[in-house]
Amino acid sequence: MDELILGGHTFTSRLFTGTGKFGSRSWIPKMLEASGSQMITVALRRVDSGGRNENILSFIPENVVLLPNTSGARTAEEAVRIARIAREAGCGKFIKVEVITDMRYLMPDNWETLRATEILAAEGFVVLPYVLPDLVLAKRLEEVGAAAVMPLGAPIGTNRGLDTRELIAMLIENCTVPVVVDAGIGKPSHAAEAMELGADAVLVNTAIATAEDPAMMGRAFSMAVEAGRLARIARMAGTSVEARPSSPLTGFLD
Amino acid sequence: MDELILGGHTFTSRLFTGTGKFGSRSWIPKMLEASGSQMITVALRRVDSGGRNENILSFIPENVVLLPNTSGARTAEEAVRIARIAREAGCGKFIKVEVITDMRYLMPDNWETLRATEILAAEGFVVLPYVLPDLVLAKRLEEVGAAAVMPLGAPIGTNRGLDTRELIAMLIENCTVPVVVDAGIGKPSHAAEAMELGADAVLVNTAIATAEDPAMMGRAFSMAVEAGRLARIARMAGTSVEARPSSPLTGFLD
Amino acid sequence: MDELILGGHTFTSRLFTGTGKFGSRSWIPKMLEASGSQMITVALRRVDSGGRNENILSFIPENVVLLPNTSGARTAEEAVRIARIAREAGCGKFIKVEVITDMRYLMPDNWETLRATEILAAEGFVVLPYVLPDLVLAKRLEEVGAAAVMPLGAPIGTNRGLDTRELIAMLIENCTVPVVVDAGIGKPSHAAEAMELGADAVLVNTAIATAEDPAMMGRAFSMAVEAGRLARIARMAGTSVEARPSSPLTGFLD
Amino acid sequence: MDELILGGHTFTSRLFTGTGKFGSRSWIPKMLEASGSQMITVALRRVDSGGRNENILSFIPENVVLLPNTSGARTAEEAVRIARIAREAGCGKFIKVEVITDMRYLMPDNWETLRATEILAAEGFVVLPYVLPDLVLAKRLEEVGAAAVMPLGAPIGTNRGLDTRELIAMLIENCTVPVVVDAGIGKPSHAAEAMELGADAVLVNTAIATAEDPAMMGRAFSMAVEAGRLARIARMAGTSVEARPSSPLTGFLD
Repeated sequence: MDELILGGHTFTSRLFTGTGKFGSRSWIPKMLEASGSQMITVALRRVDSGGRNENILSFIPENVVLLPNTSGARTAEEAVRIARIAREAGCGKFIKVEVITDMRYLMPDNWETLRATEILAAEGFVVLPYVLPDLVLAKRLEEVGAAAVMPLGAPIGTNRGLDTRELIAMLIENCTVPVVVDAGIGKPSHAAEAMELGADAVLVNTAIATAEDPAMMGRAFSMAVEAGRLARIARMAGTSVEARPSSPLTGFLD
Repeated sequence: MDELILGGHTFTSRLFTGTGKFGSRSWIPKMLEASGSQMITVALRRVDSGGRNENILSFIPENVVLLPNTSGARTAEEAVRIARIAREAGCGKFIKVEVITDMRYLMPDNWETLRATEILAAEGFVVLPYVLPDLVLAKRLEEVGAAAVMPLGAPIGTNRGLDTRELIAMLIENCTVPVVVDAGIGKPSHAAEAMELGADAVLVNTAIATAEDPAMMGRAFSMAVEAGRLARIARMAGTSVEARPSSPLTGFLD
Repeated sequence: MDELILGGHTFTSRLFTGTGKFGSRSWIPKMLEASGSQMITVALRRVDSGGRNENILSFIPENVVLLPNTSGARTAEEAVRIARIAREAGCGKFIKVEVITDMRYLMPDNWETLRATEILAAEGFVVLPYVLPDLVLAKRLEEVGAAAVMPLGAPIGTNRGLDTRELIAMLIENCTVPVVVDAGIGKPSHAAEAMELGADAVLVNTAIATAEDPAMMGRAFSMAVEAGRLARIARMAGTSVEARPSSPLTGFLD
Repeated sequence: MDELILGGHTFTSRLFTGTGKFGSRSWIPKMLEASGSQMITVALRRVDSGGRNENILSFIPENVVLLPNTSGARTAEEAVRIARIAREAGCGKFIKVEVITDMRYLMPDNWETLRATEILAAEGFVVLPYVLPDLVLAKRLEEVGAAAVMPLGAPIGTNRGLDTRELIAMLIENCTVPVVVDAGIGKPSHAAEAMELGADAVLVNTAIATAEDPAMMGRAFSMAVEAGRLARIARMAGTSVEARPSSPLTGFLD
């Protein structure tokens, strides 16, 4: 597949994954291998630098880029602190900014996210902010230095797909930074649809981690992402209301 | 991928393709190679047994199963005659029964299709009838010997996807023969969705043939079909209304 | 509202209703009054000609047209017999032909329905056949004398709305007899949508009968039906992808 | 219909309308009478206090509440200035805050809107902010004194309906102030759907103003709004996957 460049890093897979919700952490390396995912998000809280528990990082191969997230942050300031701790802990320069105060739908706080993005981008982080797909905000995120925008398709963990389809389409058409659809993608068809719309990548966690066979599901999503991307490159034809025959319709036996 | 057995033949690809609408016939073998499709439908009218024009069959590799269709038939009797001619012309025992009188939407005539299916199945054909997804009719097609049922997702050539989603789902749940979604599939995400619903295969012609790069599009569809199939096997989790966190949400810095 | 003429009868309400599923039959006259419905379907089995139980007909005012249905019929012959009994019992000349063998989704048997329609139309009945929306069949129903066609939006009692939207639209565009959407309509918005699409009337039973206040719900549906009809007559404008301002957008304070 | 109280004013109609896009302003009073709408939005720019042109206010009956909007504002400060001018011009205390910088989709600037809302609410205005449906923002609007929130269903003038359905549903469930769906509503069925979801009112301008008969269309929308509201009050039953019979299905002739 064609390459995606993000934070100076070249990705040949456009499927980003996550570490949450796996029945056993031993699925993580299997899923990564089966899916070919080259970027995985991890909640900093799960990174046990003290070493008492087995560190989640030990399940992630070296060639996979870490995307620490600021899960648990309720303000820009908290997100900034978590990001700095992540960098000091050796998690690299990528950071997914996630600021959430609504505990029912886990909807991101777009404004706090914008503030944290501005601060962290100025400090040299490669910032990927998780947001409600708001075109005006997305343009502002670009201005303050976001490396990409990560709009949600549906609330985290719901597997409902692209409820916000039309709002995401506006971001895709108008943003100059990559658009990565994150949250809500529950089936490979949802991932393919996002890529057909023109998303640059998708992040899938729950749907893979909670499948009965997460490795096989990871592979399924990677194929769907590539299918959607290829279809966009191969240029799809439009839709129509009336039928258009594939086969000659004049009476065969005339 | 797991195997699909149809008419005694084992298919490892669940993407069936077609020969209509290609800008140049030379795309056909390239598309077949790129997609790995192992079954292709061809209108008998396009099979020039006389030899004046270059025969479309010469573009189809030997290891790909021919699925001649009865395009142009307006009654059961015409479909039966075309099928017999196809067999005599060496096109094999598979036949896609297609009886169409409505020239605007090209909607199949379910009743004439049932009649033709009964006759042809009794003559030893492997009959795949193209139908409006009608559960009662589908069960009757099984009774008279159809090898599969091929419900439409949307009118031929419209690329609209699964307009008849709920009706197809009934067929999938209740039929004992394979269900192959045929017509209307315009994007890889549509194909993946059909497979996630539980279809056994899909037939895609227009969307591949009319892409700017039909070979790449063929590959895109083959990946989407496999993605949808794998997801079903790997057992997807359900959807929810409220969010379910992937990352720990207790305040990180508490 | 403009008039609908069916079987020589003039209807000013385009909401047809039913007698099934009410918590108490005493809701029926209240619902009819609140909704203004002028046609109501009743299963012949519920018409107790013997008189031991209170006859359901006693709950239906004289000015409301009875539409006996052939519920319980599993073949054309059974439907014909039920229709004749209904006429002899004084239920009038209208008959809703309903032939169902599938007990899970209660999908109509289109072919048996066609056969019954032909016989009953020839006997002078005003026949309204309940069918899966199949364009080819609908044209055949017209030919054999159906007074209207009644395509389903979704399976009976599911309240899911117009799952078969695109198939119904084909009937509306191509049929010369009235199209009455029957089954699946669960909310007033569904009824309005059917009318906006161009349906001539809708039949709603479950959604009204199972509401906590069936009379108020009947009124809600009658308003929605009229709203959809008026909107079609008042000619709606089309949709667009980009925005079109309602207010002047040049800077107010320039 | 039950009453809606907003800014100390009691509304018996839950359909708000607008003054833009009418072919002739003389349609406005006819539409208001036919629809029964009791609140109408007007761009202050259209209010010609100088008197050279015929003032749009002369087309609005006295018993209809004016909702001046800040159309043309590109910042919170501009919106505030326009609101003050409106009040001085005698347009009353209601104000619809609309801050737009994106000229393609006319998407609202949620942050500037929040700032303007805070200032104007403190000055005693009854503020109805027009926003992208963002749950976190909506709760903040409540905190700073918004009298209602007005989330968009789809971009202004597109007539596409509730593209943001799921986001609006979150606002409805979580807001304590009324939720008025504004923009995108193109058909009566869309308005009914918004009310069924639980919206407190809808604002419809383009779809009414651009109909061939705006008065009839105004009436259609008012009926749909009432239908949706009544249905919610009458308590709709849920949906199901399998069918639920309305009529007895045991064989009639057994």
